[in-house]
Amino acid sequence: MKPGKFLTIEGTEGVGKSTNVAFILDFLKQQGIDVISTREPGGTPLAEDIRSLLLCQRDELVDENAELLMMFAARAQNIAQVIKPALLAGKWVLCDRFTDATYAYQGGGRGLSFSTIEQLEALVQEELRPDLTVLLDIDVNIGLARARARGELDRFEQEHIDFFERVRSAYLSRAKNSSRIAVVNAEQALEAVQADIAHVLERLL
Amino acid sequence: MKPGKFLTIEGTEGVGKSTNVAFILDFLKQQGIDVISTREPGGTPLAEDIRSLLLCQRDELVDENAELLMMFAARAQNIAQVIKPALLAGKWVLCDRFTDATYAYQGGGRGLSFSTIEQLEALVQEELRPDLTVLLDIDVNIGLARARARGELDRFEQEHIDFFERVRSAYLSRAKNSSRIAVVNAEQALEAVQADIAHVLERLL
Repeated sequence: MKPGKFLTIEGTEGVGKSTNVAFILDFLKQQGIDVISTREPGGTPLAEDIRSLLLCQRDELVDENAELLMMFAARAQNIAQVIKPALLAGKWVLCDRFTDATYAYQGGGRGLSFSTIEQLEALVQEELRPDLTVLLDIDVNIGLARARARGELDRFEQEHIDFFERVRSAYLSRAKNSSRIAVVNAEQALEAVQADIAHVLERLL
Repeated sequence: MKPGKFLTIEGTEGVGKSTNVAFILDFLKQQGIDVISTREPGGTPLAEDIRSLLLCQRDELVDENAELLMMFAARAQNIAQVIKPALLAGKWVLCDRFTDATYAYQGGGRGLSFSTIEQLEALVQEELRPDLTVLLDIDVNIGLARARARGELDRFEQEHIDFFERVRSAYLSRAKNSSRIAVVNAEQALEAVQADIAHVLERLL
């Protein structure tokens, strides 16, 4: 059986990932593709437990390496339990955030070394890399205003604007160096965003 | 100020670590030493949350890399919040299990690569290594019988006897190659075990 394709969707806070995950799933299903979705950190009961530990507000300062290792622990679990089995069964997988987010948030945002992230990526993913990544890009202020309008902020969403500027810039710099990552302007009206996403997806069809 | 000493205590299930942690703390306090104790995985609220995720029984198979990364995530947190600040303040720190346990359980027991563990050790600990490690050694059958008599078993304690034989043998092989690790025969009467431990501790006094 032909293995499925592995798609990821990335972007900073308030960029519209959830809405567009639903759009991509619908779009692919209409093409007759058997597709599942998952998210990171998360996707399995253990990985979702790790997500809760990562996102909740704490009095305790979270060590940056602890955060990085928890992200990859959740990823290892999601790959072993969800992503690899689905791909091997010929399904397509759409993951809401993946390792590009680690380069952007822990690398760009927190300043951890990209080479450490590369080592962990090799350990946890072996040869697994996305076939295509949709990077939704938005002015950080517009995105944060949208995220804040949604309600209470998690541990990441409480970071300063500079943090998100560094995250966005790390995402864009990765996109510049990889034909796998397609940047979509998420400041446009939703119809225009989704027309761009559909256009990008056609690469794989 | 002179930094404190970093002690660890190691051993397989039912070897008597808790009793001897208490003994070591008393012994050092009687020598006028300001000593704190911590444990791994654990030692801070976040690290204890990670411990709960690691030890609880799950329907879900826990990926071996996920387990390894969670161990080091908890360790990074414990080092940043507890171990380093105490050592820098001149206190001694006694940790109930540390990275030797990762080599023994995830390396020896699960068969993960020692070089991967070395990479993570370098990332999370930088230069930090124990000054002295007391390895309590016991026949695996005797230890497991003791642990089982204590009550319900955690996710690790439910492993097969072969797993614990591999763990013990990895511990002993590390001890053979390091003068930092002192092996104490924990099959002896408690008084004899503690006399041996006291003798080992005198190296640092």
